[in-house]
Amino acid sequence: MSTDVAVVGAGVIGLAVAWRAVSAGHRVTVFDPLPARGGASWVAGGMLAPVAEAWPGEEAALALGEESLRRWPAFARELRAQGFDCGLSAQGTIVAAFDRADADQLGVLAGYLDGIGRSATLVTGRELRRTEPGLGSVRSGLLVPGDVFVDNRRLLESLLLAARARGAEFVAEAVVELAADRVATASSGARRFDAVVLCAGAHSGTLHPELASAVRPVKGEILRLRSRRGTLPPPRHTIRAVVESRPVYLVPRDDGSLVLGATQYEAGFDTGVRARGVRELLEGAERVFPSITEYELIETTAGLRAGSDDNVPYLGLLSDGVYAATGHHRNGLLLAPITSDAVLAWLSGTPAPPGTEKARPDRNASEERADAGVCQR
Amino acid sequence: MSTDVAVVGAGVIGLAVAWRAVSAGHRVTVFDPLPARGGASWVAGGMLAPVAEAWPGEEAALALGEESLRRWPAFARELRAQGFDCGLSAQGTIVAAFDRADADQLGVLAGYLDGIGRSATLVTGRELRRTEPGLGSVRSGLLVPGDVFVDNRRLLESLLLAARARGAEFVAEAVVELAADRVATASSGARRFDAVVLCAGAHSGTLHPELASAVRPVKGEILRLRSRRGTLPPPRHTIRAVVESRPVYLVPRDDGSLVLGATQYEAGFDTGVRARGVRELLEGAERVFPSITEYELIETTAGLRAGSDDNVPYLGLLSDGVYAATGHHRNGLLLAPITSDAVLAWLSGTPAPPGTEKARPDRNASEERADAGVCQR
Repeated sequence: MSTDVAVVGAGVIGLAVAWRAVSAGHRVTVFDPLPARGGASWVAGGMLAPVAEAWPGEEAALALGEESLRRWPAFARELRAQGFDCGLSAQGTIVAAFDRADADQLGVLAGYLDGIGRSATLVTGRELRRTEPGLGSVRSGLLVPGDVFVDNRRLLESLLLAARARGAEFVAEAVVELAADRVATASSGARRFDAVVLCAGAHSGTLHPELASAVRPVKGEILRLRSRRGTLPPPRHTIRAVVESRPVYLVPRDDGSLVLGATQYEAGFDTGVRARGVRELLEGAERVFPSITEYELIETTAGLRAGSDDNVPYLGLLSDGVYAATGHHRNGLLLAPITSDAVLAWLSGTPAPPGTEKARPDRNASEERADAGVCQR
Repeated sequence: MSTDVAVVGAGVIGLAVAWRAVSAGHRVTVFDPLPARGGASWVAGGMLAPVAEAWPGEEAALALGEESLRRWPAFARELRAQGFDCGLSAQGTIVAAFDRADADQLGVLAGYLDGIGRSATLVTGRELRRTEPGLGSVRSGLLVPGDVFVDNRRLLESLLLAARARGAEFVAEAVVELAADRVATASSGARRFDAVVLCAGAHSGTLHPELASAVRPVKGEILRLRSRRGTLPPPRHTIRAVVESRPVYLVPRDDGSLVLGATQYEAGFDTGVRARGVRELLEGAERVFPSITEYELIETTAGLRAGSDDNVPYLGLLSDGVYAATGHHRNGLLLAPITSDAVLAWLSGTPAPPGTEKARPDRNASEERADAGVCQR
């Protein structure tokens, strides 16, 4: 059955939903003042790294990530079949440890991953430098072969073009009102839809009362650098490390550039790039990959991740006809396939992908009710 | 007598020369692919700081700088009389010392300046912080009241508009050939002029054989930052310091922003912004003015100063009808008034300003001849 669908937000989630929904025969209208370019997924590094991002206690997030990662090849294949590329790379991730404390942490992570049956190999610093000769004085490392990465900007452009080619309509305006069956922007009157999918990332909380305190902006600064004549080329793998308690990652790109991320802190909706963030990222990266100090700094940006309370997104019905597909925090690119599959299932009334039930928007409300015993809201 | 003058280069020197020459009744044509915006003076901080820049042994450069500084008020006044501002500020410079070695250096500088009769006052760290409360744990400092600064970009825009308003013609192309009486660009044929003034900064060496080995590009990275809600405003004075052997300066702007400079190294004509330069500047600035760490980083750029062998520019006749007004290194903004006065004197056959005779382009050749005794070239 064809449905008239409004997609609010055109970051990676909104674009993936729009592209898949229009491909499935729905009529799709996407609202975003700056499609593809305005949100966290444009700023991001592009890691699809559920395992290297995993941590004991976050099994629901890991399960969702692993399920989505399994769906990534088909997602990329379908996009490619339509003539669009997304720079998917299967080089894997290296998590590097530079001191004893880091190495101990890696041991904990390796043990945890082993216990839940995920593939990851602890190696010595010497072995690691044989794989990536540009690394600094690394003590040990964890090879995570299953973690892949995409060129996020190429992906966003591809999804935008692919959705448009299939007939999705784009309205380059911000939504100011969003109710069961009406979506309004500042300059146009309300329009009726059969279903509204809220994919507005960090801004989702301002658009629906159920998310008002559930989604918060988590700011991150990120840099882009380019190798120059006489410098080492970027590493082949994504490299992750913790330097002076601060996580840092380097994600290579085909063109000799790399993405260096990311700070993480809460500062409301501010997207200014702080001096401190830039200095800390550069310091951390120099420890991990010393040659980067001679790279050209070509871009400094900041974006707002859509943080949730438990690092699990909000996927499902919010109110009559309005669905949430938001709160993806650092994992929007990773979770785009499973999220768009879930939306298609909601629209057609078929079962949603496994794991998404743990992402219901009312999960915290249910817990609160359970905690409070008889005192239900 | 009116003369047909070609000015090659539209940085601060070329624009000042063009504006003064057209104001004096000459016909002026300026060649530059990107007038006002292409060169070191656009990137610069805007300090007019002959004293704080001074060092024993560089008396010729200091004398020229002091003479030009005396001419700055009239220069700015004339520009203002035509309706253009240049953001001239007389707040003065503070040179801050953060450790014993720095403090010793300040003592040497203060003694030297005192010996040659310049005004500068040594103060304690406590006194300094009373003047600029945002400074870090400073040990002592030197107050240099006579050093002033301009908003270099406002100045460049003003000179460009002022010269244009008086009838200077601008050709937005690079000069590829420059001879006694012909100036050619890639797309236009050669044009004849009575006089050609070479103001092409770091590129001057590629345009005239006499300067080929005399002018070299000296690269510098520079950052622009802006205070944010909750941060201290920028200091009122220009602050200079040496942090871990690297000079750093902070120059405030009216709008709550500041300029943070500058690295200095030779890398040919490369103008990429290196990661190292950005990191070192930010580290240095945090030591000097800790609040800057929360400022927004709004611009990273690199420019090429026109370095000379002895930090003195090249001012005077190069060959028949061709004059040099280049090699100003870090002092182009400071030396714009005296340089334009010198050009006017050459064009009218009157005596050039005092001090400019030590900047003759053939001064090194003369010395070499003197050194070599009878063996003249």
